[in-house]
Parts: sequence; C-alpha cells; structure tokens
Amino acid sequence: MSAEQQQGRFDYLRDGAEIYRRSFATIRAEADLSRFSADEEIVAVRVIHACGMVEIAADLVFSPGAATRARAALREGAPILCDSKMVAEGVTRARLPNRNEVICTLDHPSVAMLAKNLGDTRSAAAIELWSDRLDGAIVAIGNAPTALFRLLNLLERLPLRPACIIGMPVGFVGAAESKEALIETAQAPFITVRGRKGGSAMTAGALNALAGEAE
Amino acid sequence: MSAEQQQGRFDYLRDGAEIYRRSFATIRAEADLSRFSADEEIVAVRVIHACGMVEIAADLVFSPGAATRARAALREGAPILCDSKMVAEGVTRARLPNRNEVICTLDHPSVAMLAKNLGDTRSAAAIELWSDRLDGAIVAIGNAPTALFRLLNLLERLPLRPACIIGMPVGFVGAAESKEALIETAQAPFITVRGRKGGSAMTAGALNALAGEAE
Repeated sequence: MSAEQQQGRFDYLRDGAEIYRRSFATIRAEADLSRFSADEEIVAVRVIHACGMVEIAADLVFSPGAATRARAALREGAPILCDSKMVAEGVTRARLPNRNEVICTLDHPSVAMLAKNLGDTRSAAAIELWSDRLDGAIVAIGNAPTALFRLLNLLERLPLRPACIIGMPVGFVGAAESKEALIETAQAPFITVRGRKGGSAMTAGALNALAGEAE
Repeated sequence: MSAEQQQGRFDYLRDGAEIYRRSFATIRAEADLSRFSADEEIVAVRVIHACGMVEIAADLVFSPGAATRARAALREGAPILCDSKMVAEGVTRARLPNRNEVICTLDHPSVAMLAKNLGDTRSAAAIELWSDRLDGAIVAIGNAPTALFRLLNLLERLPLRPACIIGMPVGFVGAAESKEALIETAQAPFITVRGRKGGSAMTAGALNALAGEAE
C-alpha cells in the first residue's frame, strides 16, 4: 500500500493529544465559564466536550465545594459507583489517581428478583446493593432517573453519605424531577445538570475531569 | 422496614415499561417527525430519547432507505461493529433479532502498535481490524471522528460495503466534518446527525431502534 493510498481521500487531525487540546481551546473560547471555580471549570469543560454543546454550561449545578471534595476523595481512593455499564465504560482508568474501583451492580445476580420485590426498575434495585460501599464513595448516575430517586430515598433512611453524587440522568420521565430533588435535598455534595439533558457520556466526562490532574 | 419507609420521601414512576411509554408519547407530542418514514421515525424517537432533546430531530440525516436496509440486515444476522465500548454496552442484547454479534476491536492487542504505525488514534486504528467483517455489517460510530474519517478512507480503497453506517461521533474537532464527509460520499447507506452533537448513547439508541420490532 502506498503512502498516498494510506493517507486516503480525507485528511484529518490524527494526533489524539492535539485533538483534545484544540477541543478544550474551542470550548474555553465559546463557553461562558466565568461563574465556576477552578475545579468546577474543569468539570464543565469535560461535560461540554462529552456532549458537543457549550450551552450546557448554563444548566450545570455544583453544591459548594463538591468538585474539590470529589477530587480529594478520588485521590484518597474512593470507589466509583455507577448506575449503568455505559458510565462505567466511560471512566478512563488511566486517569484514576488511586486505582479506584469502578463498580456497577446492574448485572448482579440478585438484581432482577430485587427489582421485582421492590416494584422498581433494575437500575434502581441495583442501587440497594451499594449500601456497604456508599459512605465516602463517588456516585455516578448517568442513565436512570429511578436510580437517582431511589438513592435519595436511601440516603433519607440510612446514615451514609457519598463524598459526591454526580447525578445526570437523561430523559423525559423523572430526569429533570430527580435532579431537582437532588438539588433541593442536598444530602451530600453533588454535581448535576438541570433539565432533560444528561447521560452516561456527560457523567463519565465529569468523573474523568475530577479524576485526573492533566487536562 | 415499614412499607412507608421503603416508599421513601420521593415518589416516582417505577414501572420501566410505563416510563418508556410515557417518554415516547412525550417525544411524539413535542418533536417534528413529519418528514420521516415509518422506519426512520422509530430511529428518531430513540435518538431523541437518548439525549433528551426533541430538537435533535432537525439534525438527523438518513440516506434513502438506510433505516429499512439496516433493519433487514440485522434480522439476517449482520454483526454490529462499534467504535467504542460505550456504544457496545449501549446495545440492548435482548432486542437483537438474530443473536447478532456486537464487536468492538478497541482493546485488541495489536491496536496500540497499529495506531503508532499509522500515526492515528487508537479508535481509528481499531477500524482497520474490521475489514473481514465489514461487508454487510452495521457500523456504529458514536465517539471518535477519527474512526469515521478512517472508515470513509478505508471504503475508498476496499470494495467492502456495510449494510448501514450509523455515524454519530460527537465533539469539537472533526465531528461535524466527518459526518458531512459521510453524507457527501454516501459510500454506503447511512444514518447521522449533523453538527457537533452525537455520542455513544444516541448511536446505541439508533441501533436499538433498528434492532427490535417492539417500541
């Protein structure tokens, strides 16, 4: 194969590090990040990067100090509890500062029966299996509003406090409502995005921003 | 634990099937889907569901018959080639009509060296390992613009034609450009979303719409 054939019809930027650098430069040029602290800004940039929308910055809500607290907890080795396998897959292992465990209980053998007994979704039932790891953990909910609602109910009845809840479920039923409940109750430090938008990529993006020092 | 304690402070809709039904009803009430064929509309609804934005409908582009072709190919057992593990995780296995294989070559042992030799990203290098499965396959690119560009170059030099390319990479460098190249070259049936928006969830949502008969 000649070099010309290998190059192909379309030329494009192929250097991963340079792609990141230009992406973040574009985001910083276009997005209004002025209201964020340094630690919050890094999260905002990665969330924007994950969804391709600079305007999402306006919908981000951080409880005071949540980003800094989450960053410290990750350095200290806090596990990461994910509501979906897509979120878990989105966590860049190489960025984790302390070989942090990334846990998703959705496929645990007891989840189907638990969901049936609780009369709740599988995503929500899987949260009940977090109890022994939840205190001091980083929670990353990027898919199911029912998982976030169930977590908030669980925190009402048990004296466990995550170091930070990244709560960004997406969708048309319960997503906006569960995130407003997260903001109103403020049972633990939290990072969220108001409204219907959210998802596993934004959630993993926020986590990856908090995990590593390098941009 | 009393029933009241179990119920918790927040009440929410817990029936997964009913959550889907109401979500899709809201999407159909709010989104302008009038320009789509029946098969395209189902894709549009699931893509909207994945991102929480009814306005994304305006950015969707289908090559003529692509959705119908993809649906038929999946029924006939076409494999699904994914650029990222998040996309692969987002494919609902229970919806697949013919135990279709879901393949992601990103973690193949040769990818790191291949990326170095090609001077391209790991996501793009992983595409080169698709050659023997690509003809007649469903391609699902939801993350890396470099993977989509590399695929388009590969299709210029090899006589292989996927049954459908779901090309929805996200971001600020190359995403919009790679999707415009997909539309302009039209080397194979395609489904895409113009601009910076996209991602693994929308891509998996499109695939899941094409895979199953049930909404």
